[in-house]
Amino acid sequence: MKVLITTVPFADKNRLPLEQLNAAGIEYLINPLNRKLTENELADLVKDFDIIIAGTEPITDYVIESASNLKMISRVGIGLDNVDLLAAERRGIKVSYTPDAPAPAVAELTIGLMITLLRSVQLSNIRMHKGEWERYFGRRIANTTIGVIGLGRIGTRVLNRLKAFGTPRLLVNDLSPNSELERKFKLEWVDKETIYKESDVITLHIPLTKATKNLITKKELKMMKSDAIIINTSRGGIINEGDLYHVMQEGHLSGASIDVFEQEPYDGKLTEIDRCLLTAHMGSMSIDCRTRMEIEATEEVIRFATGETLKGVVPEDEYKVQREGL
Amino acid sequence: MKVLITTVPFADKNRLPLEQLNAAGIEYLINPLNRKLTENELADLVKDFDIIIAGTEPITDYVIESASNLKMISRVGIGLDNVDLLAAERRGIKVSYTPDAPAPAVAELTIGLMITLLRSVQLSNIRMHKGEWERYFGRRIANTTIGVIGLGRIGTRVLNRLKAFGTPRLLVNDLSPNSELERKFKLEWVDKETIYKESDVITLHIPLTKATKNLITKKELKMMKSDAIIINTSRGGIINEGDLYHVMQEGHLSGASIDVFEQEPYDGKLTEIDRCLLTAHMGSMSIDCRTRMEIEATEEVIRFATGETLKGVVPEDEYKVQREGL
Repeated sequence: MKVLITTVPFADKNRLPLEQLNAAGIEYLINPLNRKLTENELADLVKDFDIIIAGTEPITDYVIESASNLKMISRVGIGLDNVDLLAAERRGIKVSYTPDAPAPAVAELTIGLMITLLRSVQLSNIRMHKGEWERYFGRRIANTTIGVIGLGRIGTRVLNRLKAFGTPRLLVNDLSPNSELERKFKLEWVDKETIYKESDVITLHIPLTKATKNLITKKELKMMKSDAIIINTSRGGIINEGDLYHVMQEGHLSGASIDVFEQEPYDGKLTEIDRCLLTAHMGSMSIDCRTRMEIEATEEVIRFATGETLKGVVPEDEYKVQREGL
Repeated sequence: MKVLITTVPFADKNRLPLEQLNAAGIEYLINPLNRKLTENELADLVKDFDIIIAGTEPITDYVIESASNLKMISRVGIGLDNVDLLAAERRGIKVSYTPDAPAPAVAELTIGLMITLLRSVQLSNIRMHKGEWERYFGRRIANTTIGVIGLGRIGTRVLNRLKAFGTPRLLVNDLSPNSELERKFKLEWVDKETIYKESDVITLHIPLTKATKNLITKKELKMMKSDAIIINTSRGGIINEGDLYHVMQEGHLSGASIDVFEQEPYDGKLTEIDRCLLTAHMGSMSIDCRTRMEIEATEEVIRFATGETLKGVVPEDEYKVQREGL
């Protein structure tokens, strides 16, 4: 079995995943371009491989078509927007993922980004390094209405941490209400429009699907308070980047924190806006979570290669989302 | 009664303190230089005034000597390192302060700064704005040993928020152990040297006194782990800035977050170090806390002017600290 590892960095802080592959006698190649691959690059590279240990590069019908030996895809992480699950299913290719591992790292970063924007930390830091002293006013979580869209593994962890800061009002939206969470966190289940209109801070914790692509465009952004803050640590494409650029350029929103982009690496127009806090898809990049994701994905590959029962198989629900275009 | 308001900005986001002074028929002047005053500037300016609504500018023996009408100092905030309490006492000048108001804002900012440094948010933001994409690895609070020096109003609030992030080991130091806190937060009371040697993140929540001035010099910094992070949102001068610059210049420490400086406005050499996150004394600068501090300090002035009982008089303990050089 030959494994192509496309996600980078891989085994950078902890060599264990490579040692596990070596011990199992599995041959591998780590992405030689050392960045996110395009569809064509991946289609070229994948030809002789049996298994992909994958990141967020596009594993499309065309890529799968080009990979005549491909038998398994093991996703390091949670989102499956980049994998054409139906094409994989048609070809009998197994797909596994590691949905739990990244959640604590993404949730913690989200809280940090929220405080950074609420207090203009990044703006003060840049000006201080130029020798400019200005004491920015800010807001506290304890005085803001926070809207959370998506209450899965990450969204619920965000709520748990916010609770310690005494958020007075939590507006939430997900496909269906959850009465246990509602009681535990004193949530208000509302429609998305209410979140857009009434929140001081809005944070997204949803997958990228046909239904969430361009969920937030100019129309939704304009519904938000003029000093609202929006945070996206989920997937690029959920907020329309061009629209975000235009409304912020016009002075709308007091800040935005964008960690994920339609095209990564990103160097688009949001880089022109100072109050847009930009990070390089770092939500899951804590050493412990990244290592756990890599080890889980690698162990799944070894289970597959040795004929053991898989533990991280993508559930039918995810296929349904793509089949029904949800 | 004529009031000199030295702290700036003042009544910037909420005019109420000025309206309160107007309603009470009290004349006032807001610091015309619109920045922290030096000792000489303050001595010149204060001559005819009866009361100072004060920030962190030096209210020394010399300043008090120059202010022959001075009867009261109302500090907006908590630290008293800038007020010569003994000189005030000798001249029969009352001193009040607002010790509770800033605490929630400082504690929340401290958590934000911690996550920012642990995840290199500010570094990624600067590089992204230059069009450079690099995914920094980081650490999570849940995997770090955190050392807290000072468990007063702010330090205990920091602990409370950290708890939600699942810190595995909390090392703390204060003048005397507190068994209630110890039980509540599963703390380890240790000496400062243990905090320096064993913590991944060290945060300071102590006043500036003769005993804490230069508490952290080259010697203490060198005891810290090479990838430790240090945060100071308390007072400038507790960490020796020159020493911090030198050890970081040599590559020691993975990051530092400095919000307070020996001289403010600051434009010293720490501005040369990218992994030194710098903010402009913004700990208490959330709109709600700042407003509460200003209103409390103003109401105390009105109580003084109208002969009512004061509510925020600085306690004897603080005089003892200065008298005994603690």
